Amino acid sequence: MTEIKIDIFDSTLRDGAQGEGISFSVEDKIKIVKLLDELGVAYIEAGNPGSNQKDLEFFDQIKNLSLKNAKLTAFGSTRRKNIKVEDDNNVQSLLRAQTPAVAIFGKSWDFHATEIIKTTLDENLNMIRETIAFFKQNGKEVVFDAEHFFDGYKANAQYAMAALNAAAEGGADCLALCDTNGGSLPFEIFEITKKVAETFPVKIGIHCHNDGGMAVANSIIAMEAGAVHIQGTYLGFGERTGNANLSVIIPNLQVKKNLSCIPAENLENLTDTAKAMAEIANITIENKDPYVGKSAFAHKGGMHIDAVAKASESFEHINPELVGNTRRVLMSEVSGRSTILKRIQKVNPELSKDSKETQKIIDMLKQYEFEGYQFEGAESSFELLIHKKLGKYKPAFELDHYRIIQENSLDQSKDLNSSVIIKIIVDGKEEITAAEGNGPVHALDKALRKALEIFYPQLKKVHLTDYKVRVLDTKKATAAKVRVIIESTDGYNVWTTIGVSTDVVKASWLALVDMIEYKIMLDSQSKKSEKQCSYSN
Amino acid sequence: MTEIKIDIFDSTLRDGAQGEGISFSVEDKIKIVKLLDELGVAYIEAGNPGSNQKDLEFFDQIKNLSLKNAKLTAFGSTRRKNIKVEDDNNVQSLLRAQTPAVAIFGKSWDFHATEIIKTTLDENLNMIRETIAFFKQNGKEVVFDAEHFFDGYKANAQYAMAALNAAAEGGADCLALCDTNGGSLPFEIFEITKKVAETFPVKIGIHCHNDGGMAVANSIIAMEAGAVHIQGTYLGFGERTGNANLSVIIPNLQVKKNLSCIPAENLENLTDTAKAMAEIANITIENKDPYVGKSAFAHKGGMHIDAVAKASESFEHINPELVGNTRRVLMSEVSGRSTILKRIQKVNPELSKDSKETQKIIDMLKQYEFEGYQFEGAESSFELLIHKKLGKYKPAFELDHYRIIQENSLDQSKDLNSSVIIKIIVDGKEEITAAEGNGPVHALDKALRKALEIFYPQLKKVHLTDYKVRVLDTKKATAAKVRVIIESTDGYNVWTTIGVSTDVVKASWLALVDMIEYKIMLDSQSKKSEKQCSYSN
Repeated sequence: MTEIKIDIFDSTLRDGAQGEGISFSVEDKIKIVKLLDELGVAYIEAGNPGSNQKDLEFFDQIKNLSLKNAKLTAFGSTRRKNIKVEDDNNVQSLLRAQTPAVAIFGKSWDFHATEIIKTTLDENLNMIRETIAFFKQNGKEVVFDAEHFFDGYKANAQYAMAALNAAAEGGADCLALCDTNGGSLPFEIFEITKKVAETFPVKIGIHCHNDGGMAVANSIIAMEAGAVHIQGTYLGFGERTGNANLSVIIPNLQVKKNLSCIPAENLENLTDTAKAMAEIANITIENKDPYVGKSAFAHKGGMHIDAVAKASESFEHINPELVGNTRRVLMSEVSGRSTILKRIQKVNPELSKDSKETQKIIDMLKQYEFEGYQFEGAESSFELLIHKKLGKYKPAFELDHYRIIQENSLDQSKDLNSSVIIKIIVDGKEEITAAEGNGPVHALDKALRKALEIFYPQLKKVHLTDYKVRVLDTKKATAAKVRVIIESTDGYNVWTTIGVSTDVVKASWLALVDMIEYKIMLDSQSKKSEKQCSYSN
Repeated sequence: MTEIKIDIFDSTLRDGAQGEGISFSVEDKIKIVKLLDELGVAYIEAGNPGSNQKDLEFFDQIKNLSLKNAKLTAFGSTRRKNIKVEDDNNVQSLLRAQTPAVAIFGKSWDFHATEIIKTTLDENLNMIRETIAFFKQNGKEVVFDAEHFFDGYKANAQYAMAALNAAAEGGADCLALCDTNGGSLPFEIFEITKKVAETFPVKIGIHCHNDGGMAVANSIIAMEAGAVHIQGTYLGFGERTGNANLSVIIPNLQVKKNLSCIPAENLENLTDTAKAMAEIANITIENKDPYVGKSAFAHKGGMHIDAVAKASESFEHINPELVGNTRRVLMSEVSGRSTILKRIQKVNPELSKDSKETQKIIDMLKQYEFEGYQFEGAESSFELLIHKKLGKYKPAFELDHYRIIQENSLDQSKDLNSSVIIKIIVDGKEEITAAEGNGPVHALDKALRKALEIFYPQLKKVHLTDYKVRVLDTKKATAAKVRVIIESTDGYNVWTTIGVSTDVVKASWLALVDMIEYKIMLDSQSKKSEKQCSYSN
């Protein structure tokens, strides 16, 4: 069987950025381009250089990045009415973006041409034809996004087809049919896409929105009708209810229809890519998101759990490992035990599933999780806990106390408004010092390091690379618990620690202490292993 | 045109309860029954009295409640293998639940009959036929849930059809085809449902799960193939990725296909029902949920906003009012001048798009966004800013200073570790006070209100309902900027405010101050309008 290829066209950075609460920095955008290219999508639509200064800057910066799999695509409109293509500033900015491909959107619903952009039906067709021809003459691959195509077709099929025809005459490489308002029903999508695919000999694409909750199915149905190019956003976010979710479409097609969307060996990176993307976009993946969500393969009902233990296909549509996700069994300590055991055995290889210590650590874990800890993103804190519980680690220092004084007054000129006094004890020796910062956490961080560096000079090389705060139980407002996660590096190792408290400063403190203790533990382990090496030589 | 009726069968209380993190008390369940009956679904599947003590208690309590629209339905399995129906305890509990309808699930995938419940193919058919016949003899309306029907059909079509045939022979009123693992593709659903509908003269139902992200579309496609009974859960929650989302299916069918799912006059209650349900289930409705989500009709892109202002159908698939939702125009750098102008005109109707003040406010907005503010979720802070910029608001108080003292020591017993001294000035009168809390923000919140309530007693009614913290530019670690958003209510109004600073306490302070100023502004406006009313009378 020859492999049929579907072009996956990701618009996270363009249509996705229209989602409520989504805002990407230039740096974020570059990270996402790398992530999607690594996964292996065919096109990355990265922004609209004509409408947006930030996007222009991004295209300028990304010029030197060479991509392995994806073609970078700039997005823009057809030329404005009644001017020459080459005189249109947006068209020129699009050209200056220097991407191998461009996506040009134009009107295909007669009502939009006459009532929204207020031009004639003929001039709208000229705008489409000439703009596409211009980019073809300039050596670009051109995708034509037929905006509101399905609504347009339902209102005036002849005109909608004429818009596609203008694009085809201009030389478009792909005609992408957009369900811009997201409300089309599956059978409408099928019938209309089929008619287009039968009429035009070029590639047909589909671009669905989720206003009817059917963007994924509508995309797949369009594929059944002849579309070979699918647009969406990797996590489904976008304006209003979002775009077609590619992290669902890709496995649906690749696992169930045996169509190639991304390189086969990358399929198992689907879940990790989703997590990394969510992190950059600063959103949470819904637990119940298909394929990549935390609950996607979680079993709760007793009967289901029993059946899955007998045969996983009894209540799972695919093997979760195919997409890099994992089966979870809820409400049962059996779930985590083998995972936890692996970590315990890193510290003490002699412990087994049934050891008393293993049970104690599981109980402790449950207690911590109950209090709001979550070690999934903070494995170093969990490793420290195991070490402590097994008596394998002695704290690097003792806190005698810290005292924070913070002031805010009519005089707003002072930048550093917080000062900290801290007193710690290391091996019986006391050290008291002070620091100030642009907030209590910053001041505390500085003071703690200042005191400890006297005893542990290696801490000078450590710096924090990430600092996140999440309010748990937001309904308790300012009295709610807060979870702080920090990521640190010494230039070689990277580790992540956690703290939970009703007080954001205290939670940060707990994460900072773990950060330091973990580093000191790492160093003492590598010293030991150096010694062992010298013995064995 | 005669109205075609689709039976909506809600399983929030049964399949929905299998969702991760979902747990209903008996009281919750009664509230949800009332809510769904009020909305007007045809069936409410409320639990499994055979497997679950809590459900038995629930059915006992609900006996006396008379429902307007819905039939209460108890759920259970076919009898166990190799016993008489009347000797099966679960069957007897189902009967004791005294509901007008029962839903009986049985195996239709040969592999499940032989490998999971380990019986013969024939005995499985007997179990189905006899159990259904028993409930028919006892005067019940019976829905047969053919578990794993689509997977079963694909594996052994003849046996899957034999299972349905056994149910039909037993007298089932409806044959519900279940895509239990949720992985079927739209065309499979269509072809198989069509075959069943052509074969059996009874009502055909559909029960989809969302593992392939297509439960809504698959349900609608089954309807196109002949199903007239649709099972799902109102908000789509359920085991793994959840069940078909009825709050999306109902408007899709009722608004777009003109089919009757609930009484027409109740359609505008869809969004409120979703909110009430989410409240009881203690979950958050996703902003981007179709029809009922907060972003479902939210517009961000400038071009879209302009077009919607010209004609709402240009970027909306339905009028949001039909389902009781509202259009929102988001504030952001990409939103156009016309959005901002509307807010400005609320304060001063004489200002136009080209007024100098309008430009100043737009520049100010850009500056704030550059600094990390984001007014999308904090419209009240933006409104305050406009008032201030236009000289329409005098601050409710002046801060002389606050001083926070926070302590952490070896003695961990103290719960309230932070104290605040605050001095404010209202109309030249000074007030100094102090408060303590379980963190500096909590203490500051308490102290500020304590001082202000003397001057503004109406603040006693205000409380915070949400508190969110987001670290911007997380790479700057503890020196990074922090964005705090709080939501508050006085029992009638709800408003959201924002603060940004490198110091989380300061950012919280800024949001708290806006929270209070907005409330005081609201009150002074309503006083003014009361006065105006009394003049005009």
